[in-house]
Order: sequence, then structure tokens, then C-alpha cells
Amino acid sequence: MTHRRAAVIGCGFFSQNHLNAWNDLSERCSIVAVCDIDRAKAEAAARRFGVPKSYTNVDEMLANESLDFVDIATTAPSHLALAEACAAKGVPVIVQKPLAPDWTDARALVAALDRAGLPMMVHENFRFQAPLLRAAELVKSGAIGKVVWGRFSFRTGYDIYAGQPYLAEVERFAILDVGIHVLDVARVFMGEAESVACRTQQVRPGIKGEDHATVLLGHVGGGTSVCEISYASHPEPDPFPFMIFELDGEAGSLRVDAGCKIVWKNASGTHHETAAPEAVAWGSEPWTVVQDSVRATQRHWLDCLDSGAVAATSGHDNLKTFALVEAAYASAASGQIVRPASID
Amino acid sequence: MTHRRAAVIGCGFFSQNHLNAWNDLSERCSIVAVCDIDRAKAEAAARRFGVPKSYTNVDEMLANESLDFVDIATTAPSHLALAEACAAKGVPVIVQKPLAPDWTDARALVAALDRAGLPMMVHENFRFQAPLLRAAELVKSGAIGKVVWGRFSFRTGYDIYAGQPYLAEVERFAILDVGIHVLDVARVFMGEAESVACRTQQVRPGIKGEDHATVLLGHVGGGTSVCEISYASHPEPDPFPFMIFELDGEAGSLRVDAGCKIVWKNASGTHHETAAPEAVAWGSEPWTVVQDSVRATQRHWLDCLDSGAVAATSGHDNLKTFALVEAAYASAASGQIVRPASID
Repeated sequence: MTHRRAAVIGCGFFSQNHLNAWNDLSERCSIVAVCDIDRAKAEAAARRFGVPKSYTNVDEMLANESLDFVDIATTAPSHLALAEACAAKGVPVIVQKPLAPDWTDARALVAALDRAGLPMMVHENFRFQAPLLRAAELVKSGAIGKVVWGRFSFRTGYDIYAGQPYLAEVERFAILDVGIHVLDVARVFMGEAESVACRTQQVRPGIKGEDHATVLLGHVGGGTSVCEISYASHPEPDPFPFMIFELDGEAGSLRVDAGCKIVWKNASGTHHETAAPEAVAWGSEPWTVVQDSVRATQRHWLDCLDSGAVAATSGHDNLKTFALVEAAYASAASGQIVRPASID
Repeated sequence: MTHRRAAVIGCGFFSQNHLNAWNDLSERCSIVAVCDIDRAKAEAAARRFGVPKSYTNVDEMLANESLDFVDIATTAPSHLALAEACAAKGVPVIVQKPLAPDWTDARALVAALDRAGLPMMVHENFRFQAPLLRAAELVKSGAIGKVVWGRFSFRTGYDIYAGQPYLAEVERFAILDVGIHVLDVARVFMGEAESVACRTQQVRPGIKGEDHATVLLGHVGGGTSVCEISYASHPEPDPFPFMIFELDGEAGSLRVDAGCKIVWKNASGTHHETAAPEAVAWGSEPWTVVQDSVRATQRHWLDCLDSGAVAATSGHDNLKTFALVEAAYASAASGQIVRPASID
């Protein structure tokens, strides 16, 4: 196990979770620098997490620091340029989702790391949530037989705009912000999708993008799934920040509810289980399931750097999820069923 | 309130509910004859419900009896010929769903009653279930504002084949058998649909039709809904025979769960309610919600005959639901989004 030197770019809202998680993993890596175009944010993060150096300029940081990897935790429009700058210096990157604002940038980013021969991973953390890991394990063990149908739901009334006001201004909103997680989880349980039908809606007045989207996926091999993506719902109870999902298999069904509750039924009976996250010393409810998944995601990245394995959410893997995002927007715009670019 | 003389054609599985419900409505109508091609079934029904006459031949019954209406409770392939025979005698009909095996027959049936200038109604009873009536009332009162999204789910592992073994043999199975109810309820809450994307699956080995179907509807005015239709699921708890659904409105959300439970949330808070059916003396759990709806459906038919009003589930109304069934099958077969014939 190599001890690694790393930097975090972007010290905003969600980055605090990254920094806390790197701190938990301090036996395996040290954050030696942070960078943010907002000097106050960079300095605050450095102080809070005991990081020796803070920067407002990435090139300066890359020139000054010897880094084993960089964690890019900025908003999507900046990812490509930042990743290219790292690649030019031979530095592997872990990049927050969404990988880029669009398909062209996303592919260019992955290609840049490929050309440099460097590993990369997308910080797609939903897969690493404790109940999802456990559900995946159960499915893999054959608990419900071959999975043929799924419903993946993230419908909430949580005020996402309070912490991330820029989300009211983006033209691609709910699918790109959280739908990308939901679509990724659909891929984990259902396999690749070859057809995408999507409808988007703007329910909240005054925002620029869609805050409600419904996606019908046709999977290779015949499976079907539905992804429900909404920041404009008022379910009771509101499962936020949990994603809930249901799977039908040839030999049973499984449901993951809020609170990490899993129930599955097969010929042997009905089984209940709670797949709670590991304790998060810096966490607070209801966020610990997310915070634990951030740490698990980052641990996986370190594991892959150690072993040389390709990350589960590598750039190439994530392009397949990103292709579903693009196909969903294309379907909503055209009113047609769209074949994702990743399938051809 | 006129007292009416009526006959029931078809004395099988579900017809027992019709006969019991007519019995509850005996102040308003009398069943004076029953008819079934299986003499034993016709005679058993006559004995059980104190019906004076039983027939195995419809023409003979129509020639002998003076009838104010006929209740057609046979399987779909026989509906058209039976309805035409009634229409030829000037007798109004209430017809079980599905109205016909296909769109051509369904339109022909409605046209036959139109030509004869006779009222007709489809025995589409889901709409008349107590929790659905109450939810419709709440929505109409503005409890959640304009409805923009819905999920209508009928996923069960109930052994439907035990009571209706012919369902294993039909090529159009789940959508035509129960999906038609689900699509009808979607119309009630969301309005007409102008686009239909559907995927069907055959999960249970050895059956001829689809036992799993998922429909994404685009509604006039921009609403979206998903219909989940499955006899191949194993949810825990299994809501059968309840349909469960969720609605998102511009001012709140509402969910109807198994057990007639309704919860809705809006600016005024969260509200819980149980919309239980009226007592059904001849009923038994978990069927009373369905049995009560059968009686409510039949009561509505008598109300319409009394007032001259067009039934909520008239032939013309039901053709709009039937068009969604056809569009769903067409979409599943073509892999394309289909515009229902009823919209043009």
C-alpha cells in the first residue's frame, strides 16, 4: 500500500465531504494542496483540514506540487480543462459527476486521460452506498434470480437550490445532476440499455431546466426499467437523500427503501435487512449514507491505484452512463425512442 | 326511479360478483334471467341467486324475455356478437372489460349500440374503487394543485391462473386483462394520453402472452405517467388486489397504498386518510374493495339509465382507454413511441 500525495480542486459545497473522507483515509494518502478560484474557500478548506498549501490557480499548483493524483470536485463545465491540465503533467484524476456538461466534453476528457496513459475514475458514489452494495451482493448471489425489471426512484421535495443555487440556472438540470446517478444504478442492476424513452417537465416556476424526468429503459437481453427523477415531488415520507428502488427477478423481488432497508422475497420466504453505512465521525443524519459512500468511492480509487485495476466507475464505464443522459435528453427533445451512442 | 328487468350473460368466475351486486340493488332492478353456454353454470347461478330463468342460448333468452338491459359478463371474444344481439332487440348493455379482444371489435361494438341509439357502459370498476373515488375528489378539490406526474402500479405475484386458467393461453395477456384498468385510471387522473411507449416481457415460462408490461404515457398538456403492470412480481407486501399509485401535483403529492390508505402532502401539511369501501355482506377480504366497486359501477349504470346521462365509462369513453391498450401493444411490437388512435 503506497502512501499517496494528492490535491483537491474545488472547495465548495460537496467538496467538504471529499476532504473529510480523504482525512479518514489519511493512512493511505495526504491532501497536500487545495485549489479554488475563490481564494477564501481555498484558504478555509486548507485551514479546516490542515492542508499545507492552498492555490487559486491550477497550473501554479501543478507546477509547484508533486502529486500522485488530483481530485476534481468543481462543477462540470470546468472538468475538461482541469483534467487536461492534470493529464499534461502525468497526474491521474478522480472527477466528480457529472463528468462534463455534455457528451463531447465527456468523451474528450476520457480521451485525454487515455492518451496520457493515466488511470481515472468518476466519483459516482451512489453505487457505493451501503444498501446498494448489499443489494448488488444479494442479486449476484441469485437471491431473486435473473433481474428482469427495475424501478429506480429519486423523487424529492428537498430544497436543492439552497445549497446549490446555480442549479436553478442550468438548462440541463435534474437528469444531469441526479438522474445520472439513477441511470448509473440502473446499469449496475439491469445491464446496459439499448433503448431510451424519456419525458422531461419543468414544474417549479422560474428555473431554466427540467426538475422532473421519467425514463423508460430497454436493456440488452430484454430487461426493462424506469427511472424517476424529480426535485418537484412531495412524497410522504420524503426519502431524500435516499434513492429507492425495486427489482423483479425471475425467482423473486427485492426493494430498497429509505433508511437502508432491504426486503426481498423468493421461494424461501420474505427477508428483511438493514444495510447501514459504516459510522461517519464527521457525518450527520440523514447524510451518513451519502458520506459513507463518498469515502467508499475514494477508498475504491486508492485500491485501484494500488492494484492497477480499472475502477468500477472508470471514465469508459461512466461514458456508458453519460450516453444514457444524452439519450434521455435527446428522447425528451424529439419525442422518439433513442438508441444510446455507447451501444453502437 | 324505475324498477328494471335485466339478464346476466356469463356465469363464471367474476360474474358471481355482478350477481351479488345486482342482488344488493334489488330495489332498483331484478335479474330475471341468466345465460351461460355451460348449462350447469347457468343453472347454478339461477339457483344461487333466485333467478327465475336460465338459458344456454342468448337468442332464445332475448326472444323470450322482456329486458331493460343486459349485463354481459363473458370473456372478451364473445362481447361483440352478444352486444349486437342485444342491440338488435333494442336492449341496452353493460359490458365487462376488456370490451373486446382488439380495437376493430371494440369499435364495432360501440358502433352497434350507437346505431341502435342505445345507452351502453363498460364495467370498468377500478375507477369506482373507494380510494380512487376519494383520491379523485381530493385532486378535484385542488389538494395537490394541477397533477403533472403519476405512477400507477399493479404488480403482483397473485396466482391469477388458478381462477382464470385461460389467461395462460391468451396472446394479449397482462395489458388487456389488468393493464386496461391501470391505463383507465391514468386517464382519470392525468387526462388523455398522446404518446405511448411500452415494453412487454414474458417472465413466467409456458404462458403465451406478456405477464409484465411498463408503459410511459405522455399526456395532453405535458403530464407524464408510468403504468406498471405485472403478474410476475413478488413485492412485499403484495398489494393485490389493490392498485397503488402516486401523483405529483404543482402544489403537493398524493399516494394511494394498499388497504385504501391515502396520504397527501401540500403547503398545509401532511394528511392521512383511509377510504374504506362500504360494507359488502357477501364479500370477504381482501376482495371487498373490488366487490364494493362492482356494486358502485352497477349503481352508476342504473343512475345513468334513470337520468339519461352518459356513463362515466361509456363505450366512447372506454374506446379511449382501449386505444391506449392498442398503442401499448403497437409500441412494444415496434419499439417506437405510438400516438393513440383516439387522439386523432
